[in-house]
Amino acid sequence: MEQSFIKELQTIVGDQYTLTDRESLAVYGYDSTPELESRPGVVLLPGSLSEVARILALCHGAGISVTPRGSGTNLSGGSLSGGGVVVQTSRMNRIVEVDEENLTATVEPGVITSALHREVEGRGLFYPPDPGSMNISTMGGNVAENSGGLRGLKYGVTADYVTGLTTVLADGELLHTGGKTVKDVAGYSLNPLLVSSEGTLGFFTSITVKLIPKPRAKITMLAHFPELNQAALAVSAIIAAKVIPATLEFLDKVTIKCVEDYSHVGLPLDVDAVLLIEVDGHPAVVAEEAASVEEICKRHRCSFFQTAKDADEALKLATARRTALSALARLKPTTILEDATVPRSCIAPMLQVIQETARKYNLTIGTFGHAGDGNLHPTCLTDERDKDEIARAHAAFDEIFDAAIAMGGTITGEHGVGLAKKRYLPRLVGESGIKVMRGIKQAFDPKGILNPGKVF
Amino acid sequence: MEQSFIKELQTIVGDQYTLTDRESLAVYGYDSTPELESRPGVVLLPGSLSEVARILALCHGAGISVTPRGSGTNLSGGSLSGGGVVVQTSRMNRIVEVDEENLTATVEPGVITSALHREVEGRGLFYPPDPGSMNISTMGGNVAENSGGLRGLKYGVTADYVTGLTTVLADGELLHTGGKTVKDVAGYSLNPLLVSSEGTLGFFTSITVKLIPKPRAKITMLAHFPELNQAALAVSAIIAAKVIPATLEFLDKVTIKCVEDYSHVGLPLDVDAVLLIEVDGHPAVVAEEAASVEEICKRHRCSFFQTAKDADEALKLATARRTALSALARLKPTTILEDATVPRSCIAPMLQVIQETARKYNLTIGTFGHAGDGNLHPTCLTDERDKDEIARAHAAFDEIFDAAIAMGGTITGEHGVGLAKKRYLPRLVGESGIKVMRGIKQAFDPKGILNPGKVF
Repeated sequence: MEQSFIKELQTIVGDQYTLTDRESLAVYGYDSTPELESRPGVVLLPGSLSEVARILALCHGAGISVTPRGSGTNLSGGSLSGGGVVVQTSRMNRIVEVDEENLTATVEPGVITSALHREVEGRGLFYPPDPGSMNISTMGGNVAENSGGLRGLKYGVTADYVTGLTTVLADGELLHTGGKTVKDVAGYSLNPLLVSSEGTLGFFTSITVKLIPKPRAKITMLAHFPELNQAALAVSAIIAAKVIPATLEFLDKVTIKCVEDYSHVGLPLDVDAVLLIEVDGHPAVVAEEAASVEEICKRHRCSFFQTAKDADEALKLATARRTALSALARLKPTTILEDATVPRSCIAPMLQVIQETARKYNLTIGTFGHAGDGNLHPTCLTDERDKDEIARAHAAFDEIFDAAIAMGGTITGEHGVGLAKKRYLPRLVGESGIKVMRGIKQAFDPKGILNPGKVF
Repeated sequence: MEQSFIKELQTIVGDQYTLTDRESLAVYGYDSTPELESRPGVVLLPGSLSEVARILALCHGAGISVTPRGSGTNLSGGSLSGGGVVVQTSRMNRIVEVDEENLTATVEPGVITSALHREVEGRGLFYPPDPGSMNISTMGGNVAENSGGLRGLKYGVTADYVTGLTTVLADGELLHTGGKTVKDVAGYSLNPLLVSSEGTLGFFTSITVKLIPKPRAKITMLAHFPELNQAALAVSAIIAAKVIPATLEFLDKVTIKCVEDYSHVGLPLDVDAVLLIEVDGHPAVVAEEAASVEEICKRHRCSFFQTAKDADEALKLATARRTALSALARLKPTTILEDATVPRSCIAPMLQVIQETARKYNLTIGTFGHAGDGNLHPTCLTDERDKDEIARAHAAFDEIFDAAIAMGGTITGEHGVGLAKKRYLPRLVGESGIKVMRGIKQAFDPKGILNPGKVF
């Protein structure tokens, strides 16, 4: 990138917020996706909407690419820039308003998701999306990726909560969509399109989300299953009994072992699966639902069933699931965390495919995830220096994704396509899907400067 | 339209499903929008996806426009064709599947919405969207318009339930988006974009929606308020007390009088407002919420508060609201039903604007609607032959929409833009919004044959 151009950018955000040193560029050359690295030409940390608009107008004029970035927890390479300008949102981190009358919150993109949780929960309100990364990742990143989380089964994902956005378009123009109204059908629905656009359609400078009343009670339960298939059947049976838990999470044997080695929470090493279940809401409802869950788990031959007796114990039980990725990641240098998603009735066959594929390619794959959503995270523990094993891992995931698609599932439930899954997307959405998506990109960003090369 | 072209269409759907007689074309020249008429060249009633695809491919090749149509209950002129081909969905009316394990239903576009309600409720499941037209309107139409309804406050609108679509694109190609998975971030979110696209982006041939467990209990309540402002404050106070009723509906004095004349349900003629409130869910929760609602209404000086003692009485109370439009429509030859929506905290000022504007332009405007959603239906009772009054009505709605926009609201909460609100859309979404929407249209339908002239 030419020095004269960097100087122009510097006049917009100021010297101290223009990073060009080797170390910074190296750091911003990664996100949380294994095997990928791509250094930016410069990293900018703007402090306001108007700075963002000026950066985009300038880059648009010069034909230089811009990649929005939050905390870089992206798992599909979506925040890597390929030599262009990275615009990082950490300085735009104000919770602008919590509107208790309209049940909305308005935030800047750099707000950490769990900071919003704390702010609204203090007022008896609730922002449900809780991605695994919620203590690090930003609202802007969550919106761009349409992040899910452990409470997705009952409460949905980020897109279900975004009601208003202010977006700087590729050419620096502003687009206001929605607001605080809960209903709006004026023209095409642009909010859900911008949510999950992975930084390719615009840069969010203001995000308004819907809040709900905070559930008054919660019961956390853990069940051990000697047989994997019984755990999967228990998941289906809980839903069929018309109980929709907030959280219905699964850990397989490989994951259980890693978690226990890492956090010593007392998980058994001789079972095939563990389910973590949380029901929340009105105390009377929660008590009934917990009783149903216990009865169903016991009917499906769980060998152990525990109900947390207080908040501390609940936290300890949930830790088993919350630390799954960190625990798996300790075992080998490279952790390929995948995101295959199927209709929830296909969890049992999907788990079988994953285990058989791991055996066939001689790989260690631990699987955990949002069983109630059919959203599994088969996680391959490998070493990117071992070219042969990496090739086998890719071959295995190829088969796993094909199986997910064949079951009516998808290649990514919550991590996005980014760079990592581009080659799988056409299999899922077909030629007509890719054509339409390219056309939409063209409508927002005809010069293709926003996060180029991602998604398709 | 040339006879030879109609003959070609006839070979696709068959003679008896190709309507060209004067009477049919006259009937299909209207939908439920006042003041608008536009006869099609021909009306087709295809019986399958493949017939729809062949119709579109043929029309695309010939550059002839196609307007999808359900039951024609559209309130914004969205189903009027302007001389082209109308493709009506009534023969594609199968409920293809109710999947109790995955909590989904898959339907063809011509299924009547209340038929789906009956089918799933018989299995203890629930499809919440319940537009006023639900006994006549189709699922295809509901999806195209993103229909709301009386249960929107707690349960959201059509877009919140559509998880999968099969869409025939303008050129006859198929697009499959989503499915039964509850989470999917593979590429841009096309489902919510297609939902509410008002027939301009594609023709839905299969719709998969999410179901939820049917609420076990419901309590229906009616409150009379001598002061309009107190009714509006009660709405805000109910939400602020963290009670989210399924239904929180409002009728003003003009509407109350019309409803009482029409259905003799015993509404008072001396109050300014009536609220209809329904809470549903677990019996214990419902009892507590109903008690809160009663206390809040009384605190806001309601003059009468009634709790339905059984299902029959609940139906009778709800009838007051369900018949509002029919009751108003009896009074004058032309009923202009509008759809201004504001953040719910702005209901009181919005009602004031509507009343003042009615006085200023010497019009009869009755207002009812989804108070909990901030979605009001100011309804002007007029006569389209009275050119002067019609001009005043349009001037009044101009001011009402400007006020809604100024309060952070929108020009349509659930009826769509169609033809009727095209001129208001730029005020709301700005030049950049219109540009992006036109680009999206271009991506789906470069020749512009699908329902041309609508939305923008």
